[in-house]
Amino acid sequence: MYISINNELFLAEDANISVADLSIQRGYGIFDFLKTINNKPIFIEDYFNRFYHSAKEMHLEVELSRTQLHEAILKLIARNNIPNSGIKIILTGGFSEDGYTMVKPNLIIIQTPLNIIENSTSKGLALVSYNHQRQIPQVKTIDYLQAIRLQKFVKENAADDLLYHNHGKVRECPRANFFIVTDHEIITAKDEILNGITRKKILSLEVPGYTFVERDFTLDEAYQAKEAFISSSTKNAFPVDKIDGKLIGDGKSTITRLINDRLLELIELDQKGES
Amino acid sequence: MYISINNELFLAEDANISVADLSIQRGYGIFDFLKTINNKPIFIEDYFNRFYHSAKEMHLEVELSRTQLHEAILKLIARNNIPNSGIKIILTGGFSEDGYTMVKPNLIIIQTPLNIIENSTSKGLALVSYNHQRQIPQVKTIDYLQAIRLQKFVKENAADDLLYHNHGKVRECPRANFFIVTDHEIITAKDEILNGITRKKILSLEVPGYTFVERDFTLDEAYQAKEAFISSSTKNAFPVDKIDGKLIGDGKSTITRLINDRLLELIELDQKGES
Repeated sequence: MYISINNELFLAEDANISVADLSIQRGYGIFDFLKTINNKPIFIEDYFNRFYHSAKEMHLEVELSRTQLHEAILKLIARNNIPNSGIKIILTGGFSEDGYTMVKPNLIIIQTPLNIIENSTSKGLALVSYNHQRQIPQVKTIDYLQAIRLQKFVKENAADDLLYHNHGKVRECPRANFFIVTDHEIITAKDEILNGITRKKILSLEVPGYTFVERDFTLDEAYQAKEAFISSSTKNAFPVDKIDGKLIGDGKSTITRLINDRLLELIELDQKGES
Repeated sequence: MYISINNELFLAEDANISVADLSIQRGYGIFDFLKTINNKPIFIEDYFNRFYHSAKEMHLEVELSRTQLHEAILKLIARNNIPNSGIKIILTGGFSEDGYTMVKPNLIIIQTPLNIIENSTSKGLALVSYNHQRQIPQVKTIDYLQAIRLQKFVKENAADDLLYHNHGKVRECPRANFFIVTDHEIITAKDEILNGITRKKILSLEVPGYTFVERDFTLDEAYQAKEAFISSSTKNAFPVDKIDGKLIGDGKSTITRLINDRLLELIELDQKGES
């Protein structure tokens, strides 16, 4: 498996960077993550929009233009030949002489195999809530201090993942957005969250009998929901069965599965679009 | 210059780690920073207490015992021969196969030359305030996302550094604690800050006519103070002349300089203690 560092390919075992890098020294970096299906990157323009936006917000210059970055990704895809994969693009603060001042960023692109999840019959997730507001929420930074630290807490609570809330206002999961379904609405947080690409695609769907609403909602509303689900690039729309040990709805996740099917159609359209 | 990685010495140009490390992938790591004077680490037991505490809080195992870590540092000091230096000990989440799960931590020790600041005649700092509460504040994590991102903001405000406050309650600087001096009190925040070693040493001093108080205080109180200063391992007690463009006190920093002199005495005592 090859890894691209500043647009040069290295075998994974040789893909090293200096400990002077600001990601190691100061946790300073952004990233993005998209998937390929049959060697075709999905929704790449959306991911590029977010990646360049994150870079700008953090005053990091991307040396490659969008076209060049696209080419760098295609070069990696061609070399690795992992048709269904996740592509992680990391941009760090660079090799800082004083371990503090930002310099020329380092660009790392890593490809890993991805099992495409169809999830029509899969069991839903159990989430455990935690009071935490991600800093600089609209930027996809590499800051997962709480998520990683709380892996133990998640296990102790027999859960699969965290559900962050800001003093009771539900926000998101560490690597996914979060939705609830009521009688006629499909609700997701609007503020202080990462604007997920899958979230955006979901909000563009038409679901007969339901309206999409972006607003604050409480943990109590989530407990009382008919359905709950997460959205992410790897999991699409994936049912949530339990929050804080409480069962959500009747476990059928009818709307979630319908949304997931629609997402798969969108992905298929994009996948065929250029290949 | 040599750098220690997992207790092996590497030339700085060869001190690289895999991009699979969780510091690069997820900003996950802790560190500590102490200084040496004439090749003697100062207050090393205090720094070790904090380092092992940080590691425990973040569920990172330090493979080396305190004695072994001390030996690793002395080995690096002996090899580099930089009598007056800063020693940075970084502990990361390790090389994670899935880029998310914590594994065996990596321990990196970096030594850099340090100019010993006597500061009796130096100009004070200009700070600019910013509303930000550090996450997991009692732990010295590598998270400096805001500090690095705001370097531009600091420059634009003709300041030397940031002063974080939590909705008006003054907290600390990115790399230093913060004190104000009133008629008879020397005040520093108590909660939601990093417990600096230099801060602790200052609080142990006796300053005739003054009482040390640990409590919340506002930006307005800081603007009105007779003196203000920061405390850190590199700067000891260092005067602050301006906050948000407002001059603090009469600029003489009498108490700050007295405290700094006392600190230098403590440091000298420690330096002679074991050498």
